[in-house]
Amino acid sequence: MSTHFNPPQSPPPGHAGTGSEDSSSTEPQMDQLVSDIKDYQLTHGNLLKLVRLEEATRIPSIGVGVSALPTPFPRRCFDEAWQLQRCMNELYIRAAADEPWLYAILKPLIEHDSFLAALWSVHLEVKEAGAVQSVVCGIFRADYMLHQPVASESVSLKQVELNTFSAAGGCHAEHVAGMHRHFERVRVERNQTSLQDIGKLASPGNNINAIVSALAAAHRAYQPSSSKGYCILMVVQPLNFNVADERPIEYGLWDADIPCYRCEWQEVLSRTTLTVDRKLMYRPIGSSTEFEVSVVYYRAGYDAAEYDEQGEETRLRLELSRAINCPDVLTHLTTFKAVQQALTESAALERFLTSADAGRVRSTFMPMYTLNSSPVRLHARAIAMDAAQAVHYVLKPNLEGGGNNVYGSNIPGFLAGIPAEQWSQYILMRLIEPPKDTHGELLTADELYQGPVVSELGVFGAVMWRKKDGDGEVEILRNEAAGWTFKTKPADTDEMSVVKGYGCFDCPRLTD
Amino acid sequence: MSTHFNPPQSPPPGHAGTGSEDSSSTEPQMDQLVSDIKDYQLTHGNLLKLVRLEEATRIPSIGVGVSALPTPFPRRCFDEAWQLQRCMNELYIRAAADEPWLYAILKPLIEHDSFLAALWSVHLEVKEAGAVQSVVCGIFRADYMLHQPVASESVSLKQVELNTFSAAGGCHAEHVAGMHRHFERVRVERNQTSLQDIGKLASPGNNINAIVSALAAAHRAYQPSSSKGYCILMVVQPLNFNVADERPIEYGLWDADIPCYRCEWQEVLSRTTLTVDRKLMYRPIGSSTEFEVSVVYYRAGYDAAEYDEQGEETRLRLELSRAINCPDVLTHLTTFKAVQQALTESAALERFLTSADAGRVRSTFMPMYTLNSSPVRLHARAIAMDAAQAVHYVLKPNLEGGGNNVYGSNIPGFLAGIPAEQWSQYILMRLIEPPKDTHGELLTADELYQGPVVSELGVFGAVMWRKKDGDGEVEILRNEAAGWTFKTKPADTDEMSVVKGYGCFDCPRLTD
Repeated sequence: MSTHFNPPQSPPPGHAGTGSEDSSSTEPQMDQLVSDIKDYQLTHGNLLKLVRLEEATRIPSIGVGVSALPTPFPRRCFDEAWQLQRCMNELYIRAAADEPWLYAILKPLIEHDSFLAALWSVHLEVKEAGAVQSVVCGIFRADYMLHQPVASESVSLKQVELNTFSAAGGCHAEHVAGMHRHFERVRVERNQTSLQDIGKLASPGNNINAIVSALAAAHRAYQPSSSKGYCILMVVQPLNFNVADERPIEYGLWDADIPCYRCEWQEVLSRTTLTVDRKLMYRPIGSSTEFEVSVVYYRAGYDAAEYDEQGEETRLRLELSRAINCPDVLTHLTTFKAVQQALTESAALERFLTSADAGRVRSTFMPMYTLNSSPVRLHARAIAMDAAQAVHYVLKPNLEGGGNNVYGSNIPGFLAGIPAEQWSQYILMRLIEPPKDTHGELLTADELYQGPVVSELGVFGAVMWRKKDGDGEVEILRNEAAGWTFKTKPADTDEMSVVKGYGCFDCPRLTD
Repeated sequence: MSTHFNPPQSPPPGHAGTGSEDSSSTEPQMDQLVSDIKDYQLTHGNLLKLVRLEEATRIPSIGVGVSALPTPFPRRCFDEAWQLQRCMNELYIRAAADEPWLYAILKPLIEHDSFLAALWSVHLEVKEAGAVQSVVCGIFRADYMLHQPVASESVSLKQVELNTFSAAGGCHAEHVAGMHRHFERVRVERNQTSLQDIGKLASPGNNINAIVSALAAAHRAYQPSSSKGYCILMVVQPLNFNVADERPIEYGLWDADIPCYRCEWQEVLSRTTLTVDRKLMYRPIGSSTEFEVSVVYYRAGYDAAEYDEQGEETRLRLELSRAINCPDVLTHLTTFKAVQQALTESAALERFLTSADAGRVRSTFMPMYTLNSSPVRLHARAIAMDAAQAVHYVLKPNLEGGGNNVYGSNIPGFLAGIPAEQWSQYILMRLIEPPKDTHGELLTADELYQGPVVSELGVFGAVMWRKKDGDGEVEILRNEAAGWTFKTKPADTDEMSVVKGYGCFDCPRLTD
């Protein structure tokens, strides 16, 4: 069987001919690396589904954006983020349990934001009915960038945001860490350099196992009404091109002998029932048997567009049930930017953490301001409307996730173009200023980019806690750092979203 | 971020609406299974590369053909094939070491077949120069089908062919075995059926590890001239869409701390040198360092088109070297159909095996005939030219691999259309007649096929031996069954080639 489908592509101008290059000629080596990376991605499922091209029995897929080489990152900052994760977890657990504090932050926003209003309404209905499940589970991800406004000063770690809901990237990140380790080992052997080079790469975080273990622990913590037939329900979006970041968790649960069924958000109402004692029962497609659900793991329900009337009813059913929600709606609410901003306010952290821990966490915060009309906010409004000052800021809508931010000099014009009563839906955040001298090599959607880059480190947190009666007290049952993600983008790109093509999964090469 | 790219596809006519089906309605369940299979393939690299669509940083891929459900196969026949493998291995090791016997078979064909002539010429040149490596390694694959010409009689196992060169399918087969196990486990749980159902699936063969272990053993058997920097060279075809069946072996070797470099067939001459003492030295792309090659693992060089003048020189260099060839050219020659036919002749097996082993092996053989002009072949020619008899036969060109076979009633016309002196390049083989009542469910390239099917079982053999001086004696150093493949096609399809779209990787559901 011949596989000579295509003539080999002629090398780009400037490339040394095969067989004549020496070790100082890196371009053929890079061409080879790019080719090897494509195959590694294909064989490890580090892929995105081309959902528009699906056919009856096949669906094409394509590699997710990755760096060609690991990007430098200070070991000190990596370690700091890892060690901070238990504090960050605790902070958000305690904030999520403090309903009065949350309500004070969110109340002014609810009337302007239908998404927030839907979630709060779900919370109130559950509260009124009386919650029947006191345990909450969470897979968080704290995101950081490096901050170095003056090149001569030392680099520090600053928080971009903390995701408490539907945090993604764990599976891709683990594959990419493994990929860079493999190619580093090949380079060490080929160039006969020191094995220490491999030790400079951040240790793989075993993200998938860590997430699976956290969900398995929640499954075991659930008290089923019978010993047979209970399962985890992973609630997912339909037509998702990024299943490669979800499926390995499902397979990992089955491998641990824990049934895990995927159910699309829009199918939840037709495929589940709530018994009179509020067990959540799920009937798999094509089955007449119903299974009691132990844990609802959300990989959907994070988008405002998902909360139409049926969507709100969906979330309400899941929250009303005995199933352990990963996470519950109050925890979901902590992922809004307004909460992140509130935590930067004076003494807010000390409400939830010891003063030592609060100090460590606060050192990662950038200044953030609301733009509501209270007198103390006039300072923030003045910054936002002054092009000279605004250039150091980003305006973020009060929603989790990226994609609708307004940067720097665009802020005054943007605010001038919307009614002033909508300003309170935005948070003004001092831009993190990453080091300008970091060089990276990225396989973007259409080219090998070689130039200045900016990286973002994410640290996963796996948590479980029990809410005690009444006053917001919690018993923390699990609190751990559960892996990491590392994404890098060209320095001149504002957004960081790998699946949208704006960045690349990467692996830190730790520098001392 | 919204992933609502497409409206959900409307269900085909006859499908029950979501939420209304019961367990007797299997179509929604099958739709779900097909969707789940697509994701499993994507996340496990069970894919083919769409090499024509390669771009600078991305290359799309698509699932390889697989069955939707495991296909029944008698446990007795599966076990027989597995237990026969050590005999089959030994047979081909000894046949490959018996140069006079091979030459007697091949001599009449060499003048008509440039591929055979090229390989034989390489053998003679190595013989003249004096071989410097006595160890040979092999990854074989013996293929079988079920034979049941009369429905009332019991089914027996019959050999299709034995591949001694560049045997493929091991990686895909392992993934598909794992896939069927996973979905069987889901079905057992969902339908609350017996765990015994999983036990009916053939145990996964751990093909990748078995092949890696065999190559690693050859690597260790090689005596390098220095302790540092020796490697395995995997010689591959350019622009191969089936890298997912090769790369896992390469990664497995690196994971075992054995460097393994891929080198395209057409690059071997420019990237390797032969030292005066015939060490094979390989220089990786972009490197100035040369590495001594311990083992040459061929995943190229099986196609006649690869043996132009440069191709013959390529093979000669590899065979002349001290590197252990996996396998050497004499072993490669045993994969030709003429050798398979010769082994069916009276007493041929007893030349190489004990009479008990010979009997076991012979019981799997179908009648085969050469069509050369010796008087004893007139019987075969008469069959081939008689449409009524030819319908039970297949005419195979004297080359390994499939794709150019002529079936049944087409044989007389085909032979009449070519000069009679070319007839000797073909082997006439009695068609294996598989059971007609086996039902399968296959994801072919464009549809879910549900109907009668035919399966082919392949058993891998991993072997290593040392040729002793002179008279064809060998010392067998390794002889084991090393995994299996199982492929199924619609019963009305003649060819079996998954990567060409004619069949599907599958897993036997063993029946008693």
